[in-house]
Amino acid sequence: MAKIINIVIDTLGGDNGAYYTVMGAVRGVQNRDNVKIFLTGDKEEIENYLKEYDYDKKRIEVVPTTQVIDLNEPPVKAVREKKDSSMVVGLNLLKEGKADAFISAGSSGAVLAGGQFIVGRAKGVKRTPLAHLIPTSGEPALLLDCGANVDCKPEVLVQFAEMGSIYMESVCGVKNPKVAIVNVGLEEEKGNALVKSTYPLLKKDKNVNFIGSIEARAIPFGKADVIVADGFVGNTVIKLYEGLSKMILKELKSAFLSDFKSKMGAILVKKSMKKTLVKFDASNKGGAPLLGLKGLVVKIHGNSKENEVISAIEQCVTFVENDVNGKIVKGFEEVDE
Amino acid sequence: MAKIINIVIDTLGGDNGAYYTVMGAVRGVQNRDNVKIFLTGDKEEIENYLKEYDYDKKRIEVVPTTQVIDLNEPPVKAVREKKDSSMVVGLNLLKEGKADAFISAGSSGAVLAGGQFIVGRAKGVKRTPLAHLIPTSGEPALLLDCGANVDCKPEVLVQFAEMGSIYMESVCGVKNPKVAIVNVGLEEEKGNALVKSTYPLLKKDKNVNFIGSIEARAIPFGKADVIVADGFVGNTVIKLYEGLSKMILKELKSAFLSDFKSKMGAILVKKSMKKTLVKFDASNKGGAPLLGLKGLVVKIHGNSKENEVISAIEQCVTFVENDVNGKIVKGFEEVDE
Repeated sequence: MAKIINIVIDTLGGDNGAYYTVMGAVRGVQNRDNVKIFLTGDKEEIENYLKEYDYDKKRIEVVPTTQVIDLNEPPVKAVREKKDSSMVVGLNLLKEGKADAFISAGSSGAVLAGGQFIVGRAKGVKRTPLAHLIPTSGEPALLLDCGANVDCKPEVLVQFAEMGSIYMESVCGVKNPKVAIVNVGLEEEKGNALVKSTYPLLKKDKNVNFIGSIEARAIPFGKADVIVADGFVGNTVIKLYEGLSKMILKELKSAFLSDFKSKMGAILVKKSMKKTLVKFDASNKGGAPLLGLKGLVVKIHGNSKENEVISAIEQCVTFVENDVNGKIVKGFEEVDE
Repeated sequence: MAKIINIVIDTLGGDNGAYYTVMGAVRGVQNRDNVKIFLTGDKEEIENYLKEYDYDKKRIEVVPTTQVIDLNEPPVKAVREKKDSSMVVGLNLLKEGKADAFISAGSSGAVLAGGQFIVGRAKGVKRTPLAHLIPTSGEPALLLDCGANVDCKPEVLVQFAEMGSIYMESVCGVKNPKVAIVNVGLEEEKGNALVKSTYPLLKKDKNVNFIGSIEARAIPFGKADVIVADGFVGNTVIKLYEGLSKMILKELKSAFLSDFKSKMGAILVKKSMKKTLVKFDASNKGGAPLLGLKGLVVKIHGNSKENEVISAIEQCVTFVENDVNGKIVKGFEEVDE
């Protein structure tokens, strides 16, 4: 039988309480024989939801906690002080090796801070980037860093490129992923000081298939598989993706309601439009991994429903089965030699 | 009679030769009694187009030039060496005070370089930002810097906020424009080193109505009138705006063609959709001004048609009539005292 993969799910801190995280956990163990899930949070709430389902009782364990980290708390302080929160207890299970991966819909800042302070960086990793799969007109691309490190050095961006490549190859099955760096132009001499210093390092890095710069206008067209940026620029890209898609769809919706003819037309195009929009739906992408830690930490949306929880569990399984962290550590040891 | 406003239009360097720039120039002088236009470029080509129109001959003057700066030339070198290009000759007219404003559809890099090296900065201006009006679900917002200065100091961003405010108030008629800085979060302690140092300076600056940070996801919803960023981040925002809108519309279009029902529906929603999409059409926005120079330099899209040329002319007229440059210089002198 395959090795059991242990995953902690923080049931609290998201917008929907424990309802969907518990449902996702149940589906996760139903889908996979080799998954065991630890649920941190309010014992009574979790057990109330669990008793609705039929599942292998040995493979879901409730870990009772008494505190919650709220979205608006200063992350570092919250992680340090709320030692019995569903998040901190969960991250400690990862740190102690009792679990291989940790999933949370809670405060992004706290997940990042907790990942770095509690779980800690893997050997050789300088900084741990938050990675997001972003929709494109082709296959999704991995954008990193999406906000964990807002000021970066060139060597840090190079590691992001390497970790991103390993992730795309091992978890998403993309062979020899194309790596690009976000830039203001395509020529090698273009860029701010950071990009200009990073470009030649990426060019000579044998561990990545570097294809050069990518202008932001080309990102949605799937020109690269791994897109590297400092956390400030990456955060801007991911959030503008979110805001602009929402705004355009909102505007189209109100256009569709503007007169009778449009309303009739909207009924007819609805189904095919919906199919298109699924592409932009992050819940199928399995959440955002914080790469380069000693274990895998995955941040899912605050409003995640069971599908995103299930995708995140699948992502954790693939990550562990393909020993992504082992490959990252190995890569960096080789580079240091 | 009102003061004559002299505008140079570089007829070359864009995608469409002199055709639309000449047409736009003719419409410009037909619309306004107080505008005189200088057209730099190929004499024969311009005159061939001009003879098709009926207009006040005294108010359009052809300035023959023999060179063109191509899109792919290194900008600084091109501007230095091609002294008889339609762009350099035009910028020199501005520098010598023979014109108040300059419009070009040519290479962005060359327009930026030429503006800085030939026209030169106005008194007290540290760096000259490229500003773009971007579409939002409310009124358009002015984003600056869109790529003229990829590495910036805090004092430079503060000047961008001030220049942007003057522009929005004087050219776009927005009273007491709300200014925000692009950031990864809303709290004052958030940001990269640059934003963290700039935030307190903006907060105490009495010349701007600073409302704090704006996350990229809020930009499309019109939360601010003036959006400040360094040229690297601003360039990323403007280009992602362009690319993502294009990609989403392309995807929707192919969804609309995916089956018979959708095709029928698409015919019905077409008109109201088109109305919505006009909002995203940069040609109505009058081009991107390079602020803080001794004269006004406006970059329009390479594929501009007559409408964008006309809007750019109108923008130049408002800019000059409202003495935006005078206000900028005055503001900075006061700050320096």
